[in-house]
Amino acid sequence: MTQHDTVGILLTNLGTPAAPTPAAVRKYLAQFLSDRRVADSLPRPIWWLILHGIILRVRPAKSARIYRRIWTSEGSPLLVISQRQVSALQSVLDERCSVPVRVELGMRYQEPSLGEALQRLHADGVRKLLVVPLYPQYSAATTASTFDEIASRMKGLRWLPALRFINGYHDDEGYISALCESIRPVWAKRGPPDRLLFSFHGLPLRHIDSGDPYHGECETTVRLVCERLSLGDEQWALSFQSRVGREEWLRPNTDELLWQWGKEGVKRVDVVCPGFSADCVETLEEIAIRGRDTFLSAGGGALHYIPGLNDRPEHIRALADLAFSHAGDWLNG
Amino acid sequence: MTQHDTVGILLTNLGTPAAPTPAAVRKYLAQFLSDRRVADSLPRPIWWLILHGIILRVRPAKSARIYRRIWTSEGSPLLVISQRQVSALQSVLDERCSVPVRVELGMRYQEPSLGEALQRLHADGVRKLLVVPLYPQYSAATTASTFDEIASRMKGLRWLPALRFINGYHDDEGYISALCESIRPVWAKRGPPDRLLFSFHGLPLRHIDSGDPYHGECETTVRLVCERLSLGDEQWALSFQSRVGREEWLRPNTDELLWQWGKEGVKRVDVVCPGFSADCVETLEEIAIRGRDTFLSAGGGALHYIPGLNDRPEHIRALADLAFSHAGDWLNG
Repeated sequence: MTQHDTVGILLTNLGTPAAPTPAAVRKYLAQFLSDRRVADSLPRPIWWLILHGIILRVRPAKSARIYRRIWTSEGSPLLVISQRQVSALQSVLDERCSVPVRVELGMRYQEPSLGEALQRLHADGVRKLLVVPLYPQYSAATTASTFDEIASRMKGLRWLPALRFINGYHDDEGYISALCESIRPVWAKRGPPDRLLFSFHGLPLRHIDSGDPYHGECETTVRLVCERLSLGDEQWALSFQSRVGREEWLRPNTDELLWQWGKEGVKRVDVVCPGFSADCVETLEEIAIRGRDTFLSAGGGALHYIPGLNDRPEHIRALADLAFSHAGDWLNG
Repeated sequence: MTQHDTVGILLTNLGTPAAPTPAAVRKYLAQFLSDRRVADSLPRPIWWLILHGIILRVRPAKSARIYRRIWTSEGSPLLVISQRQVSALQSVLDERCSVPVRVELGMRYQEPSLGEALQRLHADGVRKLLVVPLYPQYSAATTASTFDEIASRMKGLRWLPALRFINGYHDDEGYISALCESIRPVWAKRGPPDRLLFSFHGLPLRHIDSGDPYHGECETTVRLVCERLSLGDEQWALSFQSRVGREEWLRPNTDELLWQWGKEGVKRVDVVCPGFSADCVETLEEIAIRGRDTFLSAGGGALHYIPGLNDRPEHIRALADLAFSHAGDWLNG
């Protein structure tokens, strides 16, 4: 067996600032908000002026304070968890595969970049590459942006790998089952909540109207989980978080819904965020800290955030199964 | 079953001028020779001046005369054959697959373009796409250029398909076997030749030195065919055709070798071109007409060009098997 039989698996996620400081956050936001797949509503020169003239002067300091609330001694939660996912998946695949496999991490923004990850895999002779963006629900702003960046970095390679690119797994059996298994133990211990809220990252309605399947895929994920958990219609809701800008976004808005439920005197809400494969500022700060504050301030009883799938064994098993379902012929040699 | 279960298979090849006229050839060459993966030895502005100042003034008329020699009443051989490949593969897959499959043709240069082919597949709801560049041996100038163009056209799509991109099949069982089956009937009828020449498109040595696997893949293809046909070392040779420019290219050069064999008084040469999946100007004019002239003028006895795999049933079966080996999970539903 030659080195060229090594199969590369590239796990990708969004990325994180390198440090919870205004300078590091500015670098991260500058890259993130320059992505045409993310910020596409204004002509580029106008957007450039707003981005560099206003946003990147004001937001980094505020965002850095937010990141500081969730930062760990090991670093950014998203990065730390992603690295654990990589090594856990590597172990599972090492055991299950008959060929050498190399799992790498690449972030769309900041480090480790997709370009570096590709270079590392390429230098190690990987000529069969499976790209797994860790976005279960497809959106152009995340999934397509990842593809664009990978394709652009591939322009620098003379010998392209055979490429397989996964564009989502919102209804994948293993993923749905991992979600259920992340919820059940919490309920076994504490009993079921009055309401289970599924909170996904929002998107401008304009994206959905122009054909992005994200909304429908979020709904399907939720339906499949609710069926599996035998939840009645009054026991759950679906909402969208992280809205920015003045456009209309997907509704209902997570914080508005939590405020309303608090006002209604709901006793206990559990929140799960199935769109985030790893906990990050959007789940740890926006939901578990701020969302909880909102709910309690409005008069709600208790809010529990159900941790992300992260490196839970069921999640890693689901990712390994996903790799096999897309590249079983490669992985079995 | 929804429309979204339709699997798209995009067969790609190089392309052809739309007509054997200087104007059509100029359009084709302008696009072909502007490709950075093809013409990469000079800085872009200098190349642009040479291309537009000299090459595109001189070559189209000469090339048009060459194309006229092989043009058919149906049009350009490459295009006509490619369209037959598409419909033959469509029929085979319709029979073998349990899901709807849509085979499309896209040419890297000129029409039908890769962009149009992608748009058609996308508009028909194809969300699983297998791209099969009909280049059995990988080179950046062909295979990677195809990937670059597809990726660039995908920037215009909001909902990207799950993508599988094949980067070659030089040692594929079905392909090797189809090559042998294209040679055997000729020999059964006329007896074996004194020499079998495998002629591949050449490449600048600089490409190979910088890591392009093309040369080695051509050699492997030839070795596998020779083993299968039980050919002794003196019965065959490998050469490279279509050299342009002043750089060192892969050697030996096809026309030099044919001239030398003619001088040596070789009685019969058969030429096969395994790198061309469909007959085109490089095989029909450069080998079957000009190569033959060269060999006969130098004193050789007879030269037979063994037709390309084209839409031979063995070739279509090999392509169907290739599709199944890369996307069996999609095609079996």
